Amino acid sequence: MNFDWLEMPVAELNRTSQRAAEQHQATLTKPPGALGRLETIAIRLAAMQGVVKPELQRIHIVVFAADHGVVAEGVSAFPQAVTTEMVRNFASGGAAISVLARELGAGLRVVNLGTVMDTGMDTGTDIECGIDHDASTITHLHLGPGTANFTSAAAMTAEQLARALNVGRQNAERAFKQGAQLFIGGEMGIGNTTSAAAMACALLNAAPQQLVGPGTGLDSAGIKRKVAVVTRALAFHQEKLDSPLAVLQQLGGFEIAALCGAYIAAAKMGLPLLIDGFITTVAALLAERISPGTAAWFFYSHASAEPGHQHVIAALAGEPLLDFGMRLGEGSGAAVSVPILRLACALHNNMATFAAADVSQKI
Amino acid sequence: MNFDWLEMPVAELNRTSQRAAEQHQATLTKPPGALGRLETIAIRLAAMQGVVKPELQRIHIVVFAADHGVVAEGVSAFPQAVTTEMVRNFASGGAAISVLARELGAGLRVVNLGTVMDTGMDTGTDIECGIDHDASTITHLHLGPGTANFTSAAAMTAEQLARALNVGRQNAERAFKQGAQLFIGGEMGIGNTTSAAAMACALLNAAPQQLVGPGTGLDSAGIKRKVAVVTRALAFHQEKLDSPLAVLQQLGGFEIAALCGAYIAAAKMGLPLLIDGFITTVAALLAERISPGTAAWFFYSHASAEPGHQHVIAALAGEPLLDFGMRLGEGSGAAVSVPILRLACALHNNMATFAAADVSQKI
Repeated sequence: MNFDWLEMPVAELNRTSQRAAEQHQATLTKPPGALGRLETIAIRLAAMQGVVKPELQRIHIVVFAADHGVVAEGVSAFPQAVTTEMVRNFASGGAAISVLARELGAGLRVVNLGTVMDTGMDTGTDIECGIDHDASTITHLHLGPGTANFTSAAAMTAEQLARALNVGRQNAERAFKQGAQLFIGGEMGIGNTTSAAAMACALLNAAPQQLVGPGTGLDSAGIKRKVAVVTRALAFHQEKLDSPLAVLQQLGGFEIAALCGAYIAAAKMGLPLLIDGFITTVAALLAERISPGTAAWFFYSHASAEPGHQHVIAALAGEPLLDFGMRLGEGSGAAVSVPILRLACALHNNMATFAAADVSQKI
Repeated sequence: MNFDWLEMPVAELNRTSQRAAEQHQATLTKPPGALGRLETIAIRLAAMQGVVKPELQRIHIVVFAADHGVVAEGVSAFPQAVTTEMVRNFASGGAAISVLARELGAGLRVVNLGTVMDTGMDTGTDIECGIDHDASTITHLHLGPGTANFTSAAAMTAEQLARALNVGRQNAERAFKQGAQLFIGGEMGIGNTTSAAAMACALLNAAPQQLVGPGTGLDSAGIKRKVAVVTRALAFHQEKLDSPLAVLQQLGGFEIAALCGAYIAAAKMGLPLLIDGFITTVAALLAERISPGTAAWFFYSHASAEPGHQHVIAALAGEPLLDFGMRLGEGSGAAVSVPILRLACALHNNMATFAAADVSQKI
């Protein structure tokens, strides 16, 4: 159980590159500021990549999946089998994130940290794993058949927590070594909005009513039940929720811990991160609390329709790029926003300067 | 001076295709509604294209350019020469819209309806014209050396108006014949936010203070001067502003009339339209007022930073997709939103169904 790597320093942005990128932006044939956020995106990526002209050709998407014991409390509109079924769907190319990864030419890996059912496509290994896009197997890490029901037990053991964080770290390191210029974490896990809402309540000291939402589609009676479950869990664990790691162990999910580990490791290496929706933003908040400074490496892709998302993103002072009422997870909102980041780079890198195009400047 | 074509009926959306697309959406492996606006975009495009699975491979962008006599009143932060200089920049590939068109694989044409200066790259012809992407000439229509100063005269003659509308129509028809699946109109014209604001005031019966903004970058004294110019122009033309065509003739610009003609013609043929920012939304409002029903063919790409935009888009009950504080024109905001529409189609067309992927449905 090694948590020491979490303490390593976060990479610093390159302020020289940032200034050079700012100066370059000011020479382009448009009124200053006329491209709005596209300008600041390009400049920020320049500072992250340590170059004047940033690029986003190589994008790695990793979807982490796991089951949740709290599903026994009737907190989801879909049956638990869907976690495993969707893992198969990711691998066979039919899920939203599979379609998006293909369209973007992005790498897609699926990492199953622990589902109740067997996918029937697993290859066994107990170390970091996954599938590459269009591969036909998923490696199962077998951290357990999902987490324990956290209304009456810790969601996971300290060892499971350490391993799940480490799986995330290994996946971020793998992406970095392969030259990824942007990392997207996605998640799949029936019941994981309940886990995310419970953790957000603990981290933000907020009421469950504020942070619990319909997830995949609960009706109002279902949401009421889910609020009661979260309230009960928070009371049960009250005295143990004294650190972000404790919150993650008591109320978390394997896939959320893996996301958290991936974000922390990526920020330490200087790999830019694109955060998806509610679940991943809670993982991002945990990462920032565990390893302060991590958030300097975040882009926030979209405002989720899950009502708790706005509170979590506000706690990170995040400004989402898109607001389409999406609430799917899988990394889908992040993937949809990738072309925006790419076009911001293309404009920054390829527009003519006033001098080169012989265009007059402001009066 | 033939305006009769404006009276032809607008094409109807295909409701059978719409229902089929809705049914198809409901079978995809995700909670119903979880892709938010991406779902409604795909369904709307299906109804427009009369298919179950819409496509946006072939996108045509036409940038209409012209000068404005009202620039003599000191209403722009940039000199009038910039219109011509930017037309050259579009053609030589260095402008924002040139970069975006390349990234999107979209066709780009530049149509100069009348600038004060010669681009030095013109080829002469008095009929519909333009350049295709990466071509090195721009055809100049010579409707005049820009419009007249509309503080003391009609911006254009009835003949100029008819010709400008017709240039837009011809460009939309050309795109349609070439198989365009989406049409984007862009504009360039130093002074055209003054023209657009004046027309929006007339159409919406609004105060200039509400609709006049900084354009390419006026300071507060400049905005004050611009408000006074618009106020004066509205008073001067007061009795003539009794129809949308009259508003366009008295206060408009050649490029805005061409946009308006393109929108009207496209809607009559059933070619979907993606509206850009402030100027194009005013052209879109004119098009809807001249030919009611045209707006059924609009997508609104983004919320411009130009403050008047929100009022004009509200008058059309439009909901912009993006909000990045852009205010460049050229069709740039529309171009940036194209990948969103394309990903909406890809998800709708290529995701697996519950049945095919053997995924359980809602409890």
